[in-house]
Amino acid sequence: MCGIVGYIGEKQAAPILLDGLSKLEYRGYDSAGIAVFDGEAIHMTKSTGRLKVLEDLTHGGALLYGTAGIGHTRWATHGEPTDANAHPQINKDGSIAVVHNGIIENYIKLKKKLEKKGYEFRSQTDTEVIAHMLDYYYTGDPIETIAKIMHRMEGSYALGIMFQDHPGEIYAVRKDSPLIVAESDQGNFMASDAPAILKYTRKVYFIENEEIVRLGRDSLNFYNIDEEELTKEPTMIEWDIKAAEKGGYDHFMLKEIYEQPKAVSDTLIPRLKDKDIIIDELGMTDEEIKRIRKIYIIACGSAYHTGVTAKYVFEGLARIPVEVDLASEFRYRNPIFEPDTFAIIVSQSGETADSLAALREAKAHHIKTLGIVNVVGSSIAREADNVMYTWAGPEIAVATTKAYSTQLIAQYLLALKFAKVRETIDETTFSSMIDSLKQLPEQISFLLSHKENVQKFANRYLASDHVFFIGRGIDYAISLEGSLKLKEISYIHSEAYAAGELKHGTISLIEDGRLVVAVLTQPDLYKKTISNILEVKTRGAFVMAVTTVGNTQVEKVADYCIYIPETNPYFTNSLAVIPLQLFGYYVALGKGLDVDKPRNLAKSVTVE
Amino acid sequence: MCGIVGYIGEKQAAPILLDGLSKLEYRGYDSAGIAVFDGEAIHMTKSTGRLKVLEDLTHGGALLYGTAGIGHTRWATHGEPTDANAHPQINKDGSIAVVHNGIIENYIKLKKKLEKKGYEFRSQTDTEVIAHMLDYYYTGDPIETIAKIMHRMEGSYALGIMFQDHPGEIYAVRKDSPLIVAESDQGNFMASDAPAILKYTRKVYFIENEEIVRLGRDSLNFYNIDEEELTKEPTMIEWDIKAAEKGGYDHFMLKEIYEQPKAVSDTLIPRLKDKDIIIDELGMTDEEIKRIRKIYIIACGSAYHTGVTAKYVFEGLARIPVEVDLASEFRYRNPIFEPDTFAIIVSQSGETADSLAALREAKAHHIKTLGIVNVVGSSIAREADNVMYTWAGPEIAVATTKAYSTQLIAQYLLALKFAKVRETIDETTFSSMIDSLKQLPEQISFLLSHKENVQKFANRYLASDHVFFIGRGIDYAISLEGSLKLKEISYIHSEAYAAGELKHGTISLIEDGRLVVAVLTQPDLYKKTISNILEVKTRGAFVMAVTTVGNTQVEKVADYCIYIPETNPYFTNSLAVIPLQLFGYYVALGKGLDVDKPRNLAKSVTVE
Repeated sequence: MCGIVGYIGEKQAAPILLDGLSKLEYRGYDSAGIAVFDGEAIHMTKSTGRLKVLEDLTHGGALLYGTAGIGHTRWATHGEPTDANAHPQINKDGSIAVVHNGIIENYIKLKKKLEKKGYEFRSQTDTEVIAHMLDYYYTGDPIETIAKIMHRMEGSYALGIMFQDHPGEIYAVRKDSPLIVAESDQGNFMASDAPAILKYTRKVYFIENEEIVRLGRDSLNFYNIDEEELTKEPTMIEWDIKAAEKGGYDHFMLKEIYEQPKAVSDTLIPRLKDKDIIIDELGMTDEEIKRIRKIYIIACGSAYHTGVTAKYVFEGLARIPVEVDLASEFRYRNPIFEPDTFAIIVSQSGETADSLAALREAKAHHIKTLGIVNVVGSSIAREADNVMYTWAGPEIAVATTKAYSTQLIAQYLLALKFAKVRETIDETTFSSMIDSLKQLPEQISFLLSHKENVQKFANRYLASDHVFFIGRGIDYAISLEGSLKLKEISYIHSEAYAAGELKHGTISLIEDGRLVVAVLTQPDLYKKTISNILEVKTRGAFVMAVTTVGNTQVEKVADYCIYIPETNPYFTNSLAVIPLQLFGYYVALGKGLDVDKPRNLAKSVTVE
Repeated sequence: MCGIVGYIGEKQAAPILLDGLSKLEYRGYDSAGIAVFDGEAIHMTKSTGRLKVLEDLTHGGALLYGTAGIGHTRWATHGEPTDANAHPQINKDGSIAVVHNGIIENYIKLKKKLEKKGYEFRSQTDTEVIAHMLDYYYTGDPIETIAKIMHRMEGSYALGIMFQDHPGEIYAVRKDSPLIVAESDQGNFMASDAPAILKYTRKVYFIENEEIVRLGRDSLNFYNIDEEELTKEPTMIEWDIKAAEKGGYDHFMLKEIYEQPKAVSDTLIPRLKDKDIIIDELGMTDEEIKRIRKIYIIACGSAYHTGVTAKYVFEGLARIPVEVDLASEFRYRNPIFEPDTFAIIVSQSGETADSLAALREAKAHHIKTLGIVNVVGSSIAREADNVMYTWAGPEIAVATTKAYSTQLIAQYLLALKFAKVRETIDETTFSSMIDSLKQLPEQISFLLSHKENVQKFANRYLASDHVFFIGRGIDYAISLEGSLKLKEISYIHSEAYAAGELKHGTISLIEDGRLVVAVLTQPDLYKKTISNILEVKTRGAFVMAVTTVGNTQVEKVADYCIYIPETNPYFTNSLAVIPLQLFGYYVALGKGLDVDKPRNLAKSVTVE
C-alpha cells in the first residue's frame, strides 16, 4: 500500500527521501510527495504519477533545502489520486505536516467535528483529518499531542509528523500499520518498510503498536501512549533489499497470499455496522435494490471466477437471476438489456480493457453499473455509476490472490445486503451469516499456518503434465480458480470440470496416476462428488480432496485430504481458495519457475 | 435406423430371419418382429426390447413354420416403441404384411383418407398406412399394386412385403432407403444391410430407387415403377461382416460423420413448409411463444455445446434471454424459475440421467418443457411436455457427430420460429435464413468431399500432448465441441477458450510448437480473433485456422487454413464442426486408438 520514509540528520533530506521512496516503488503507488523542514518553515512538493515527476519538480531534491523531512508514496484509498490528495497533508497554516499509511475508520465523524470548529478541508483524504487534529489538540508538546489524537482515532495508521516549532525533531507513531525507525552515524530514519533505509543502515528498531518515537539528529526516544519513555533494543537486519521488498517472503505471491486475512478484513469490517451491512458507495435506495430483475456480472480471468461464485450467492440468497459473462465475450455479443438490469464489473486494476469496454456497453444501454475495483481512481472506478473498492492494497504478483479474495467478500456483502432489503433472508440467518463473514480472516490465517500440508503434497506432483479440478456448484467455481492458479504459474495443463460433466468426454483422459483435485465443501453435494471421485479413482487417478472439517468420509476415497474450517456453505470459497493458491505456488516454486512473473502474462490486461 | 431382412427358399424362414436381424443389432433398435408365411396364412410375432425376447417367444423361430418370411428391427420414429408399433404391420385381415425402413412424410393425409374409407388403425406408425394402402389398392397383381402406392407415397422407404394369395413370393421395393437383394442356392434374401445375409451368400443385387423386386424360391425379377421388367447384374461382396456393418467405413464414427448431410436434411426439411417453419410437435400457440421471457437450455456434453451455440441464435434472432446450463449443475443448484420460463432439454439418447432429473426439476416448478431428443419414446421424450425429434437415426460411435448436428438444426428452427412469431425478424431475413438452412446438407457434403485437407494435417499432429481451441462468440461455442471431440477419442488434453480470455492466464501454457486451433467464422470478430492468433503465434504456437471462404487475411497469420463455405453467421457451426470432427477422428485413428469406443466412456450416460 502506501510507503513512508523520514530522515533527520546532517545531510540534505530531500535526496534521501526521494531515494528511499524509490525503494518502495515495488509496492505500487499513484502519487507521491515530500516535505522538508529548513529550520524555519516546512516546504512541500507533491505530485500524481511516477516519482520521476517529483524528482523533476524538485531537481532531484535540490530545490527543497533542509536536513529533516518526511516523504510518502500513496496508493489511493480515500479520495482519488490527485495532487491535493497526495501526502504530506498539512494543517491550515502549514506548520504541521503528516504522512500516513492505513485507514482512519472514524474519519467522517472526526471531520464533521473539525468542520464545526471551523477547519476547512482541501482534500478527500482521511489523512487531512490527522493534520487538523494535531493542530486542534496541539499543546506545544508533540508527544502529548500525538497521544491525545491517538485516543481519538479508530483504524490503522503509521504516521510521520513534523512540527514547525520543533526544529531538529521528527515524530513517528503507529497502530496496525508497519513502521520501523533506523539509526546511523549520519542521522536517523523512519520507514514503512526496510528497503527504504537499507542503503544507509542496518540498525533498526521495530515500532510496536501505539508506540511514539521522537527522532533527533543523533537521538531516538520511544514512548508509549501514556507518554512514558521506553527502552528499545535495535535489531541488525541481514536481508538484502530484494528480500526486504517482499517483507521476508520469497515471492510477492506468497506475501500476498499471507496478506489475505488483513485484505479480507479491510474489505469487510468497515462495511459491517450495528449488525447491518452499510455500503454507502453503492448509491442505491432500497427501492432500487428491490426493483432489480437481473444482474450481469462481467469480468475476466480470476475476477470472472469470483462472479461464477457470486452467481450462486446472489441467486441463492437474494433470488435475483445472475448471468456471469466474460468481458471479452459480453462486449461483442449483443446482450439483451432488459429494464431493471444491474451490471457489476469486477476488476483488480480497474483498467482491464475488455471489462472497461463491457462497462461502457452496459452504460450505453442505460443499465445501472457498479465497479468492484481495487485501484482507486482507475478508469472503471471513474466511469461506473458507483464503485465499491476492495481494500486489498497493491498486488504485485501477476497471479492474483488477495484481490480475488476481496472481490469475493465485496460480492458476498452485496448479495447479503440485497437479500436483506428484498426480504429473501430472515434476520437470524442474516446475523449468523455476518458472524460467519467475521470469522473468515481468522480462518484464513489458520489455513495459512498449516501451509506445510499443501507444500509437502505439491512437492510430489511437480512432474504432472495434466491436472483436473472437479467440484459441483460453488465447488465448481473454486475449481476454476484453483485450476487457473496452477496453470498460469506452473505451466501445467490443468482444467476444471463440473464434477458431473467429467463423464461426458473428459474422463477419457484419466489414466493411471493422473492427479485430480476434488473440492467438496457443500454438504448437499458431498455424496455426489464422492461418486465422481470414485469414477476417476477407478480409472487410476490420484485424488487430492479439499473438504470441510468433519467430512471424514472423503478420506475413504481420496488419497490425500486437506480440511478447511467450517463456515456458511455460501462462503466456503474464501477458505478453499487458500490451499489451492498454495498448491499452485508450491508447484511452481518446486519447478523453479518465476512465480511472480509467469511467462507471457501481464498483471493488468489493458489490451483486448 | 431400422433393419429389414427377408427370406424365401427351401429352409425354415424364421431362424434365418432371427439370425439376420441379430446381424443388424449394431444399428440400434427398440423392438423387433417377424412374419412367416406357411403357404396358407401369415403368422406374426412382435415384441419390444431385445431380439432375445423374440427368440424366446418363437423358441428360436421353431414356433413359426414356413419357408418365406420378413423380419424387422425397429428404431422408433412415428409412435413409441410398443408391440403394436413394431413391424411387420398388416392389413385388416392379416393377408398382407409389410416391414418398412424410412419415413412416409404424407402419412397423416393418407391415413385420414383411409380412415374415411373405413380403415381402422391399430398403431401410431406410418407403416400401417402402407399395409392398408396395399389392401385398398390391391388388384391381385402385386407389382401393379406396389407401383400404385409408390405414386401416392412421399418420403423414404425400403419395404419388404408378403401377400397371402401369392405364396412362394415376397416383394421388395425402395426409395431413398437402402435395400439389397441376394441370391443363393438355398433361396433368396432381401436386407437393408449386407451383414444380415453375408453368412449365406455374397451374390448381391443393389436395388435402385423406385425399383421393385419379386423374390421367388429360385427366381428374382426386377421391375421399374412403370412395371417394366429390368435386367440387373449381381455384385460379389468382398466385405467381411464387421466392415459391412459400417457400410464400408472404417468406423461408425466416420460413417456417422458422413451421414450428416442426410441427418441434417431429415431433421430440417420435413419442418419447412411453404416458406414457413412448422413444428407441430412444439405444442405452443403463438401467444405462448410471445409470452416466453426466458429460456433454459439444459444438457450435458456435446448436447450442452449445441445449447451454447443456440443461446447466441435465440438471443440474437428472437431476443429472448437464454441461460445454458449443465444438467448435472442445474438439478442441484436451486435455479430461479420465473413465470413464462421455457426449458429445453437436449439429449441424444433421451435417457441421460442428469438431463432427465433436470427436466423433472423444471416440471416440478411448472415450467413448460421441450425435449430435443433422438430416441423416440425415451424417458425424456415421454416426460417432457412436448418433444421435437432429431432424425439422426441411431448413433453407434460414443463420440457424437450426427446427433450434435441435428440438435443444432432443431434449435435453429426453434429460434427462427420464435423470432418470426415474436416479430423480431423481418420476412426477407427469415426467407434468406431458410434458404441458408436448406443449403447446409450440400455444404456439409462439400466439406466431407475435401476431408483430405484435414486428414493430412491431423497426421502431423499425432504426438501433441496439449491443444488449445480458441474462438469468439459462436466460434467459441464450436471450439468447445471441437476440443471435446479431439480429447474424448484421442486422449490429447485439449481445452477450448474464449479467444479474448486466453491472456488472463492460459496463454502461459503456449510455447514453441504448441498447436492452437482457431475458429473465425464471424465477420464481426475476424479481426479480434486474428489479434489473438498473433498473440499465440508470438509465443511460438502453430495455428490451424477454420474460417469462412474468402477470409484470406487469415492465411497471413495462421500456419494452416481450412475454409468452410459461406452461410448465415448464425449457422456456421453446422459447417465448422465438420473439419473439427474429422480432425479428432483422424488424430485418434493415426494414434491407433479405438475410435468408436474410447476408454472410460459410455454412449448414453444413464448414471449421475
